[in-house]
Amino acid sequence: MTYCVALKLKDGLVFASDTRTNAGVDQIASFRKMRIFNRSGDRTIVMLSSGNLSTTQNAVNLLEKEARNPDIPNMWNVDSLFEVAQLLGNSLRTIKKVDGVYLAQNNIDAGANFILGGQIRGEPMRLFLIYSEGNFIEAMDETPYFQIGETKYGKPIIDRVINQGTSLGEALKCVLVSFDSTMRSNLSVGLPIDVACYNNQSLNLAETYQIKEGDPCFRSISRGWGEGLRQVFSSLPDPEWTGISEL
Amino acid sequence: MTYCVALKLKDGLVFASDTRTNAGVDQIASFRKMRIFNRSGDRTIVMLSSGNLSTTQNAVNLLEKEARNPDIPNMWNVDSLFEVAQLLGNSLRTIKKVDGVYLAQNNIDAGANFILGGQIRGEPMRLFLIYSEGNFIEAMDETPYFQIGETKYGKPIIDRVINQGTSLGEALKCVLVSFDSTMRSNLSVGLPIDVACYNNQSLNLAETYQIKEGDPCFRSISRGWGEGLRQVFSSLPDPEWTGISEL
Repeated sequence: MTYCVALKLKDGLVFASDTRTNAGVDQIASFRKMRIFNRSGDRTIVMLSSGNLSTTQNAVNLLEKEARNPDIPNMWNVDSLFEVAQLLGNSLRTIKKVDGVYLAQNNIDAGANFILGGQIRGEPMRLFLIYSEGNFIEAMDETPYFQIGETKYGKPIIDRVINQGTSLGEALKCVLVSFDSTMRSNLSVGLPIDVACYNNQSLNLAETYQIKEGDPCFRSISRGWGEGLRQVFSSLPDPEWTGISEL
Repeated sequence: MTYCVALKLKDGLVFASDTRTNAGVDQIASFRKMRIFNRSGDRTIVMLSSGNLSTTQNAVNLLEKEARNPDIPNMWNVDSLFEVAQLLGNSLRTIKKVDGVYLAQNNIDAGANFILGGQIRGEPMRLFLIYSEGNFIEAMDETPYFQIGETKYGKPIIDRVINQGTSLGEALKCVLVSFDSTMRSNLSVGLPIDVACYNNQSLNLAETYQIKEGDPCFRSISRGWGEGLRQVFSSLPDPEWTGISEL
């Protein structure tokens, strides 16, 4: 299983993805699900992926292969992230068309999703969610984030604290709490977590980091959150209306 | 959509279910998803249901019809809740067999799940989860609860605070927080919520209650939880390791 999340805020973009891949409980491995394409001063493109690993890897492989041909539209020469989303969607469709029929013979799902975000010179920052069918949607101000993979456990905290004006530091903290909740409830989402932060208009990736097992910052956030939740829970009023105190 | 949860603790059982049913966004109605069969001093049986409403209603209708015949095993004369689970599973299979083929013609899922819990004289309390196929599992001490329907948003808080020794009052509070999280993230789960509490060995249902829109206790728990979460979040350490403070 996978969990990836990306946020588009006034100040910039935050991306995070876990690295655990499994094909059955006895075959668990780590693969990066975050790809970064950065040309300082021109464009920063980040892709997060979930779903069938061979589909996602080869959709990106195909995209990179095409990007070596300057005579066709590719992710290094198009003028907008919308066109990169089209290219990635088409690449995903091509791979699924080639491999899907063989996978279907063994009831293996070739499905895959991408989150694509970043900035190309001349454009504002943009963030897209690419569906398994190759079509896609774009994040708007009202819903400034996308998740893929095991999305539900980590969604409530994002809904509670994130809005357009949230600082990148707060947003990163929120993303880590969101991962903590997800990993507690789904063992197949796990460390390390890849994190990338992009500053609006910088056209260069500010920070990337991999949070490994035992990372002191992540541990202190995880412990602080767990203890805090239990304290808040204890301090909530008892449900008096049932006369439950007499039970 | 539906959310139902039941907990089996040392002190007793707690059941809760929402009442919202929808068949498309323009056809939303309230139906009770909790049925109580209580004969003081002999047995208390509670059923929660999710899935296709006609399937769940008619599976219970069939069970009740059979219960009027004292010459066959039925939920009022069998000696254990295990047998009631068998009866309910069989009833579910019968209804799905009759109706399923017609529903399938219109791509309508006839699937349904039940949580079945309670106590029959001579037995300890028991709690079962009945799958859509009619088979079932029983809650053990290690995992003292079951959920059906929209289960993920409300699961983390249960995992964090519930264990065998949790009091019924705390458990009920936890269930309400779990509902609050679920309703915030899935609009198709909604008030009113039916709640029932059973005291171990009482062989009589202690408390039932319906939490309606504007219930002051639920509102204060909901508000306290939301504000508390944001406070805990603010108090968490900033993720210093990325140098994010300089962004």
